[in-house]
Amino acid sequence: MVQAGQDESAMRSWVEYDADSEFPIQNIPFGAFLNPRTNEVHCCTRIGDKVIDLSILEHERLLSEGPIMENLDHHVFCEPTLNKFMELGKDARIEVRKAIQGLFAEGSEKLSEAMRQSSMFPVSEVSLRMPVFVRDYTDFYSSYSHAYNVGCMIRGPDNAIQPNWLHLPVGYHGRASSIVLSGTEVRRPKGQVSADKKVPTWSACNRMDLELEMGTIIGRANNLGDPIPVNEARDYVFGYCLLNDWSARDMQVWEYVPLGPFNAKNFCSSISPWIVTPEALAPFKVSLPAQ
Amino acid sequence: MVQAGQDESAMRSWVEYDADSEFPIQNIPFGAFLNPRTNEVHCCTRIGDKVIDLSILEHERLLSEGPIMENLDHHVFCEPTLNKFMELGKDARIEVRKAIQGLFAEGSEKLSEAMRQSSMFPVSEVSLRMPVFVRDYTDFYSSYSHAYNVGCMIRGPDNAIQPNWLHLPVGYHGRASSIVLSGTEVRRPKGQVSADKKVPTWSACNRMDLELEMGTIIGRANNLGDPIPVNEARDYVFGYCLLNDWSARDMQVWEYVPLGPFNAKNFCSSISPWIVTPEALAPFKVSLPAQ
Repeated sequence: MVQAGQDESAMRSWVEYDADSEFPIQNIPFGAFLNPRTNEVHCCTRIGDKVIDLSILEHERLLSEGPIMENLDHHVFCEPTLNKFMELGKDARIEVRKAIQGLFAEGSEKLSEAMRQSSMFPVSEVSLRMPVFVRDYTDFYSSYSHAYNVGCMIRGPDNAIQPNWLHLPVGYHGRASSIVLSGTEVRRPKGQVSADKKVPTWSACNRMDLELEMGTIIGRANNLGDPIPVNEARDYVFGYCLLNDWSARDMQVWEYVPLGPFNAKNFCSSISPWIVTPEALAPFKVSLPAQ
Repeated sequence: MVQAGQDESAMRSWVEYDADSEFPIQNIPFGAFLNPRTNEVHCCTRIGDKVIDLSILEHERLLSEGPIMENLDHHVFCEPTLNKFMELGKDARIEVRKAIQGLFAEGSEKLSEAMRQSSMFPVSEVSLRMPVFVRDYTDFYSSYSHAYNVGCMIRGPDNAIQPNWLHLPVGYHGRASSIVLSGTEVRRPKGQVSADKKVPTWSACNRMDLELEMGTIIGRANNLGDPIPVNEARDYVFGYCLLNDWSARDMQVWEYVPLGPFNAKNFCSSISPWIVTPEALAPFKVSLPAQ
């Protein structure tokens, strides 16, 4: 097992990949895929261009090198999504990440040749799946420049930013069941649009927009009504993904008053298949721009 | 089995109940409860003051008198929610409803004394549970008088009703995970409120409101992007319940611009435990008020 505190930046893997790979042994993202041999959807990770079936490693107890995973009395990676793993919390995630790095680090011989053959697949030969079951989906309006640009588009520059934006995270609930994996076909919606904001016509969307957003996956639940102290909030984050928030802007300007976006935003949102952990992103922390 | 088309209004049950009971044999609502003998949550119905465990009747094939339920190769009522049953669609629901009425109709001896003892419970002795797993929750602003009243409260009478309200169903997505069973304690939320709509203060909610709404349970899914023809929309409705849409109005007026209600509406919504079917409500249809 790789020791806690060990400098990861120098770590290398016996899996070969290019120096500019987005999936070095320092990353260890989590996802889900259809294992082409068993025809079952299981949780996985990726190093270089190899997708690794975590259910196979878990079954052999190769991920149980820390106290949480060692004492777990059920399997979490034979599930079709990461939800059961996410519920275990941050420390379990750190244990599993370290165990995977230990198995795949240069010089490690913990993984037999037979296990290497059975658990690893070229990414080009597998089908990736939705990594998580999304229970609820909230879209926050959290970049000033973006809020200003969209505000100008819809209300003009004088009313682009509302007073509340400076004081609270403005957000709305989206439709959780329309979140799909990147690559899924997006159907252009039809609906009401109105040029004069008084009388609508029926039309296919003429102003399809896209927004590159960062998705935050909340992996643990709190009890309804119990606030989470702000200093503990980070412990509820399992990881991050990219999100494409498709928007039908012409429908949005007609429908969004006073209850917010609805059909203009609920037809599809696409996420990336890999969830990148806070641990993997830690070395890339920078200060926020001054505000 | 009760024949299709038979006049239900004259039907009587061997279960005794008062003439003004809301649960006559004409109702047959669906719900979920903790069976106190097995300690498992199963689907149920109710006649008079008796809750009936449908998983026990299903196990004995007493609900399989129609072609859909007869050929079903799995059980749906031993689930902790109605979702698997709902997915079977309208015709399966009608079959089960008729089968239950046949078992409990006056003069019927299809249910043995042993089965009566094992499947029926006084409602006062059991714990009712959330009848459905709510995948997504949409709140529509569909009563003119209500929209006008709330609009006056928030924007004044001149802007109470927006032009779009007359042309499309204005709605927003709520938080599906905060829908709870009626009787669950509601915690008064804390958050930002602002008297001048410019600068907020932190406060417990001072304007808690409640709204009596009718909840519509959509029991079948469509494929993402496939529109449902309006004349087929009814077939997707499993049933109806009461819904209390708790609202923190002072938080709502501060936060709702421009993306709609969020924290003011997502802390709790309560639903009734019994889902009443379209078949049970059919005899009570009346014309809409003229508009």
